Amino acid sequence: MTFHTEYLWFNTEKRREFLNITRKVEDIVAASGIREGMALVSAMHITAGVWVNDAESGLLADIDEWLERLAPYDLEGYRHHRTGEDNGDAHLKNLLVHHQVILPITGGRPDMGPWQQVYYAEFDGRRRKRVIVKVMGE
Amino acid sequence: MTFHTEYLWFNTEKRREFLNITRKVEDIVAASGIREGMALVSAMHITAGVWVNDAESGLLADIDEWLERLAPYDLEGYRHHRTGEDNGDAHLKNLLVHHQVILPITGGRPDMGPWQQVYYAEFDGRRRKRVIVKVMGE
Amino acid sequence: MTFHTEYLWFNTEKRREFLNITRKVEDIVAASGIREGMALVSAMHITAGVWVNDAESGLLADIDEWLERLAPYDLEGYRHHRTGEDNGDAHLKNLLVHHQVILPITGGRPDMGPWQQVYYAEFDGRRRKRVIVKVMGE
Repeated sequence: MTFHTEYLWFNTEKRREFLNITRKVEDIVAASGIREGMALVSAMHITAGVWVNDAESGLLADIDEWLERLAPYDLEGYRHHRTGEDNGDAHLKNLLVHHQVILPITGGRPDMGPWQQVYYAEFDGRRRKRVIVKVMGE
Repeated sequence: MTFHTEYLWFNTEKRREFLNITRKVEDIVAASGIREGMALVSAMHITAGVWVNDAESGLLADIDEWLERLAPYDLEGYRHHRTGEDNGDAHLKNLLVHHQVILPITGGRPDMGPWQQVYYAEFDGRRRKRVIVKVMGE
Repeated sequence: MTFHTEYLWFNTEKRREFLNITRKVEDIVAASGIREGMALVSAMHITAGVWVNDAESGLLADIDEWLERLAPYDLEGYRHHRTGEDNGDAHLKNLLVHHQVILPITGGRPDMGPWQQVYYAEFDGRRRKRVIVKVMGE
């Protein structure tokens, strides 16, 4: 059994940004040498998500607008901001999209559908944050 | 360590349909011979979900209505439709319910609560789509 | 390969309650002796969730209010209640926040960010319910 762990660091320019990390994850799976198993891709922060969806710019704008509708940025609206924070919305967006995915690995590669791409979703950026990628298998 | 991978294919008659796949997953776990481990059940599409919840027809209708309220079908409303697609809502529903679950396996069976059933949630059907089931353990 | 399984039982006083179970999960990981691998933390009920987020009381109140807005308690509003139940909202909240997380384990400990805490989210309490923690690794 092999375990291979790497960390991806991000520091986005904008508060909210969605980054396609499929290639980076594929490279880590390749580096692990694992042929059969799973790769966990998990945000190490509570104001960022990881999802699998389409790499289509219109859809990414739709997702951003939709998340803003369901969990709006609102300086006045959250009790959490009494702590001095302004990112209550980012915590809710994290809960909504989930902070992690598992990629199955078959034949040495992520076993994904043709349109499935892995995204890091930053909801409170402009500082260094990271994602753990842990590959486990044989 | 054993790895056992199967693919379930679906082609629903309706655009949206929720299918109880618990028995199929149990059969795959049994076929794997694995006594201890986990089974990943993961949609290979970005317009379908997998969840664990109740097999109760009233609730399934409630879920459908609720998803339609939070992420409505809307031909005009999504930038994604400029690509020629009409399934923007299905992408959002996928993000909302998540596209995968992990079932723990204990004593050769999925170790689930008495009411937990595994569902494939089709949000853009009437074509062949699939789910990967990867069982990993000993 | 080692597999270590424990069950956490809960019986909350209130209908909805969010419990920080990070310490309990850390203790189970320590008891497993596993240095590298993953821990699955998964609710065995369809009206409870498990999430990773902040241990901040204002935010927890924000989350409760937000979930109540997106999936409200409503005695009249759900078809599911024709079965005699009154917990339709709890099923939807479960779908929204997801019922499980995977914690990566590195060096014998959950490999989490500094603010990440594991929560059991009860949406229909005042009775005995449980969570499975299955640790898998070496």
